[in-house]
Amino acid sequence: MDQRIIGMIENVVGKEGYSTKTADLYTYGFDASIFHNSPDIVVQPRTTEQVSEIMKIANSERIPVVPRGAGTGLCGSAVPMKGGIVLAMQKMDKIKNVSVEDLWVDVEAGCVYDDLNRELLKHGFFFPPSPGSAEACQVGGMVATNASGMRAVKYGATRDFVLGLTFVKADGEIVRAGTRTIKDSSGYQLARLMCGSEGTLGVITEVTFKIATKPKKSASCLCGFDDVEDAGRCIAGLIAKPLIPASCELMDSVSIEAVNKARGNPLPACKAICIVEVDGETDEIIHRDLKIVEEVAKEKGAISVTPSFDAKEISKWTDARKSVMTSLSALKPGYSSVSLADDMGVPVSRVPEAVKAFQGIAAKYGVTIATYGHASDGNLHTKMLIDPTDKDEWERGVKAVDEIFDVCIELGGTVTGEHGVGISKAPNYMKERASELSSIIAIKKAMDPENILNPGKMEQWHGSILTHLRYPCKEII
Amino acid sequence: MDQRIIGMIENVVGKEGYSTKTADLYTYGFDASIFHNSPDIVVQPRTTEQVSEIMKIANSERIPVVPRGAGTGLCGSAVPMKGGIVLAMQKMDKIKNVSVEDLWVDVEAGCVYDDLNRELLKHGFFFPPSPGSAEACQVGGMVATNASGMRAVKYGATRDFVLGLTFVKADGEIVRAGTRTIKDSSGYQLARLMCGSEGTLGVITEVTFKIATKPKKSASCLCGFDDVEDAGRCIAGLIAKPLIPASCELMDSVSIEAVNKARGNPLPACKAICIVEVDGETDEIIHRDLKIVEEVAKEKGAISVTPSFDAKEISKWTDARKSVMTSLSALKPGYSSVSLADDMGVPVSRVPEAVKAFQGIAAKYGVTIATYGHASDGNLHTKMLIDPTDKDEWERGVKAVDEIFDVCIELGGTVTGEHGVGISKAPNYMKERASELSSIIAIKKAMDPENILNPGKMEQWHGSILTHLRYPCKEII
Repeated sequence: MDQRIIGMIENVVGKEGYSTKTADLYTYGFDASIFHNSPDIVVQPRTTEQVSEIMKIANSERIPVVPRGAGTGLCGSAVPMKGGIVLAMQKMDKIKNVSVEDLWVDVEAGCVYDDLNRELLKHGFFFPPSPGSAEACQVGGMVATNASGMRAVKYGATRDFVLGLTFVKADGEIVRAGTRTIKDSSGYQLARLMCGSEGTLGVITEVTFKIATKPKKSASCLCGFDDVEDAGRCIAGLIAKPLIPASCELMDSVSIEAVNKARGNPLPACKAICIVEVDGETDEIIHRDLKIVEEVAKEKGAISVTPSFDAKEISKWTDARKSVMTSLSALKPGYSSVSLADDMGVPVSRVPEAVKAFQGIAAKYGVTIATYGHASDGNLHTKMLIDPTDKDEWERGVKAVDEIFDVCIELGGTVTGEHGVGISKAPNYMKERASELSSIIAIKKAMDPENILNPGKMEQWHGSILTHLRYPCKEII
Repeated sequence: MDQRIIGMIENVVGKEGYSTKTADLYTYGFDASIFHNSPDIVVQPRTTEQVSEIMKIANSERIPVVPRGAGTGLCGSAVPMKGGIVLAMQKMDKIKNVSVEDLWVDVEAGCVYDDLNRELLKHGFFFPPSPGSAEACQVGGMVATNASGMRAVKYGATRDFVLGLTFVKADGEIVRAGTRTIKDSSGYQLARLMCGSEGTLGVITEVTFKIATKPKKSASCLCGFDDVEDAGRCIAGLIAKPLIPASCELMDSVSIEAVNKARGNPLPACKAICIVEVDGETDEIIHRDLKIVEEVAKEKGAISVTPSFDAKEISKWTDARKSVMTSLSALKPGYSSVSLADDMGVPVSRVPEAVKAFQGIAAKYGVTIATYGHASDGNLHTKMLIDPTDKDEWERGVKAVDEIFDVCIELGGTVTGEHGVGISKAPNYMKERASELSSIIAIKKAMDPENILNPGKMEQWHGSILTHLRYPCKEII
């Protein structure tokens, strides 16, 4: 990067606030996706005002800017594909104000999700979305991707908790959007528009989240099935009762087998598992709800039903579920577990069909695919085992996930329920959202006329996703 | 209106689908605000495609279009200030699909809120926002104003339930935004942006709402205070416990006096009342929560605390609370109870300060102001008694509400929590949202370049709000 521009940036953030060292640029060229590309400079702002000054420089010099949280994203949203500036937000990590009586918290974008919840729990509250990367991910990234996790069916996703936020526009203007009140009918919901915008409309620097009361009791029930369709019917049956579980995690046979092999059989050997968590205010409710779970599971053909109040046992199940991705990599030496179709959403009642279809697609293309996820909100993860040096495997993999996405769209679903679009889902996102594209393009242009904010992502992605891979496949560049 | 254009419209909706009769135009020139202006034509579309065709005509002929639900809005959002076409949505009132297992319902924009809930309750579900105009208001209008009501603190506002929607853009393009899945990280949240856009970005024709399970038990507690500040401290104390009530309605001394005079003393004579409703799954929870309400109320200085499980008694209280507006009109013959500052939001902990300040402002300008509202989410209503023939009274009234808005903004609040901006709140909305204005203007221009969608409202309102009054004040036109 031009020394003149580096000098301008140093004037804003000081010597300690940026780096152009090759190792740092390399590091900040990754997120948790399959892609890599180094930026020209990494900047770590400490204030919204610094972000504003950096944006003014970038806008007048037409330099791409990619805001970045912890880089836990799985689809390339934070990879600087066109180089330029990475704005790494980890130094803006303060919890500024917990206003319990007013039901909100003011927090900087770089605050880690678990840190925020540790603070809120002291008051009996929590911020519920619970992404899988809770220990590391930052709340700004959660807003930018509208992240969520296991508890969304009962408590909602990040978008449902954003009361207001501060963001910096492409031209450096600082905008405070939304309110610090529980309700707000005051015109366009700009703060909600920023949810899921993946750094393409502005740089989020602070957020006001609504907070929720933490239920006092919880328990779980592990239900085993010999057919994944029975598991799906069990979940739909619970919701129709109605019983909205705190979470409901599904694992298919590939996931169970991989975890049992890699981790010493923490799970019963069967074709599908649902781990249903119920929560509430009293033991009476927990017992009542567990009984409903047992009844519905048996009615839908469960071959084993194991309710548990034992934190140790429950955490063994949860750890097993969380280890699918790494366990899968251990299945086949030299193979990698990659994220290509990582978080599709379908209507809950279509989960069984979807999982069956994914299994058929895996067989058709001769690839190993594990399916698991937050089934009670219809959010399904797949991971694929790929020899990352083999171009043909990558190409079969992409064909398989294209078909997976087609199935989800056909079932009335979405290509991404909680991780975002980035690069890996961009082509199918455009298919899914064809009807919205003209509005999306118009809004992007209105907010970022010079197209410097995370350019080339989402609706701006054209061509194959097999490029800039982090893996050593010589035939793909 | 030009006969040529009327002919084009008739070609789309048929003879039965529109009217240019003076009486109809007059009727559709009202909503529940202080304003009136007749449109040039009222069109009642039956399908999204008809709306699209009408928009194409309007866009090419540069005719203003104002979409309209039941006209229960209090700030003029649905009054066609520049004439043109009113699109009255009541013929699009179908509940198209209740998908209980998938936790959503597909419904046309003209469906009445209570009708939708009657259908959902058959399945044990409901759509919670509960606006005061529940019997009449249409769900499309609820989305357009991001409406809510008593239950927002626990269950959220309309924006929190919109999974997807169909809208027609200014140029007639039909857009399906969002999804029919519980979660969705798929790019810009266009469906949420439409919440609160008051017909200025597109015409909403169908909505997919997330639905919630209806709690099995509820009870209420009426707490009387001899100081409104004690009532406010009681509410903040409950939330800090934490206890999130299903609803918590506050009435100040003017409201209580008006209702007791007009309705034969349904309420205890005191300076402030909170009616706290708790709900949950079991009797145990209800008893536990009622006990907390009683304890906190007494601790904060309540002079009477009356818990009740009796539906008749509770509905007497609720009816009393709902009758404030009409009761106030009955206080002074010839005076009208008008909506000027009708739904401010402040952080819950600032409710006592806000109510005290409103009382001081009323005294300063010599006007009668009643304050009441959904205090547990900080949403306060005021109604003012005005001699509507007296220009001076109107002008004092507007000065008073300007000060009320100033207080709310200073306390970290918003000029509108649940009714929208329209005309009556436009000047103070622009003050509150100064930081967002450049983005708002850019987005409006991107979505409606010819400015035909509800033009002149919200950020486009300039000048005094004392114009086009529905009241006979000869000096104001």
